[in-house]
Amino acid sequence: MSEAVERGVAAGERERRKIRAGDFSGNTAGLAPGNVQANLVILPEALAHDFLRFAQANPKPCPVLAVSAAGDPHLPGLGQDLDIRSDLPRYRVWRRGELVDEPTNLLHVWRNDLVSFALGCSFSFEEALVEAGIELRHITCGSNVPMYRTNIRCAPAEPFAGPLVVSMRPLKPKDAIRAIQITSRFPSVHGAPVHVGLPDAIGIADLAKPDYGDAVPVGNDELPVFWACGVTPQAVIAEVRPDFCITHAPGSMLITDLRNTALASL
Amino acid sequence: MSEAVERGVAAGERERRKIRAGDFSGNTAGLAPGNVQANLVILPEALAHDFLRFAQANPKPCPVLAVSAAGDPHLPGLGQDLDIRSDLPRYRVWRRGELVDEPTNLLHVWRNDLVSFALGCSFSFEEALVEAGIELRHITCGSNVPMYRTNIRCAPAEPFAGPLVVSMRPLKPKDAIRAIQITSRFPSVHGAPVHVGLPDAIGIADLAKPDYGDAVPVGNDELPVFWACGVTPQAVIAEVRPDFCITHAPGSMLITDLRNTALASL
Repeated sequence: MSEAVERGVAAGERERRKIRAGDFSGNTAGLAPGNVQANLVILPEALAHDFLRFAQANPKPCPVLAVSAAGDPHLPGLGQDLDIRSDLPRYRVWRRGELVDEPTNLLHVWRNDLVSFALGCSFSFEEALVEAGIELRHITCGSNVPMYRTNIRCAPAEPFAGPLVVSMRPLKPKDAIRAIQITSRFPSVHGAPVHVGLPDAIGIADLAKPDYGDAVPVGNDELPVFWACGVTPQAVIAEVRPDFCITHAPGSMLITDLRNTALASL
Repeated sequence: MSEAVERGVAAGERERRKIRAGDFSGNTAGLAPGNVQANLVILPEALAHDFLRFAQANPKPCPVLAVSAAGDPHLPGLGQDLDIRSDLPRYRVWRRGELVDEPTNLLHVWRNDLVSFALGCSFSFEEALVEAGIELRHITCGSNVPMYRTNIRCAPAEPFAGPLVVSMRPLKPKDAIRAIQITSRFPSVHGAPVHVGLPDAIGIADLAKPDYGDAVPVGNDELPVFWACGVTPQAVIAEVRPDFCITHAPGSMLITDLRNTALASL
């Protein structure tokens, strides 16, 4: 194992151990810098195959980093010691599409038919953009990235269907071009933007009114750049209203041992 | 030599032989499809080093494919039999920045101190865009690509200095993103765009009034996408007004043996 890989494993294990012990229940942004963080979706086995088909058909909003066997709370590909029931700071438990609980672990709701999906998260490509000297407005503003439901439909995989949700970052044209190049290298964490400029064309009437997250100012010398967003599966699950479902709580991600740099395809 | 490489050499030699014999003096677009075509600049040795420094400092508008030794009319890296004095359909001869002749060969003006520069041309990346199913408006319109002088200054290399000239292709946002990805693979033929949307920001007041080439319609659902253009060195040479200089005539390019696909960096 190289030193960089070892550092990633050590940082991932350290943060997960803290969270598992109940010593941290906040936002994971900035923890284990350079390590991949992931969105989490947990579904009963009866729906898991269809959800995986949905993700496979929609790799930009739903890039699958790992899938567990039914009932197995481990994802050793993302961390040897990882236990999905305890290693996120906060979860959301949904019944028939209604949020019923926000626990800090899943020990009391775990079932032997549950399948866990870890999906790529924009934190990974944002790190690469910041490294390249590109200003990300929501970070400057200390707010959440603005997200919008679009008029673009995901490719359906019955019963899963719904609109593509996008996140938006305003960039100067030169930075937009560079950001397209950089994020193209990261297909497993949403990849290249799906749209640039012209919000109307994808059904966004007002950039100042995001459907999720917070609005950010867009300068006259900037273009809004839109990436497929990890909120898409949650929006789709809210439409499908499965009997039982678990997700991460917003901002409270799964910290893995993988390094963001290791995800670059080029 | 692979079959594809052999085919490129055969097509290049065939077209150059025809041109050399005086049997063709028109536009080279569409000749030897898949072969790299190049812009040509010929300067006296006394200016050659400074021009090469200028090109090196401005690789997007001036991507150098080959440079000759002084007085040597051959560029074997682009074609074994290639003779720069006779292998373009039409040339332009400039004295102190004034166009004085448009000959079909250079035999009567050749000098032993002349250095030839072959510079990449957008034909190469346009072929890759068309292959990807992207409509190029000026091709649809059967016109020349519109080109604009910008307020972006090239990096100077005394005495060479001047504005960056860009070509513009209107594209739907999705195609603009794909075009950025595709042309990023071709740094030796202008590479990724330098700007997208917001023409004002680079000093273009009216897209309908290009400085070179022909205007094309831009749809409400399209963004203007701007690439560094091979006309830049000609605009710069016109400013510098060297005692003596030769270029290709517009559209009358140097056909090489190289294949466009061989230029892809990835």
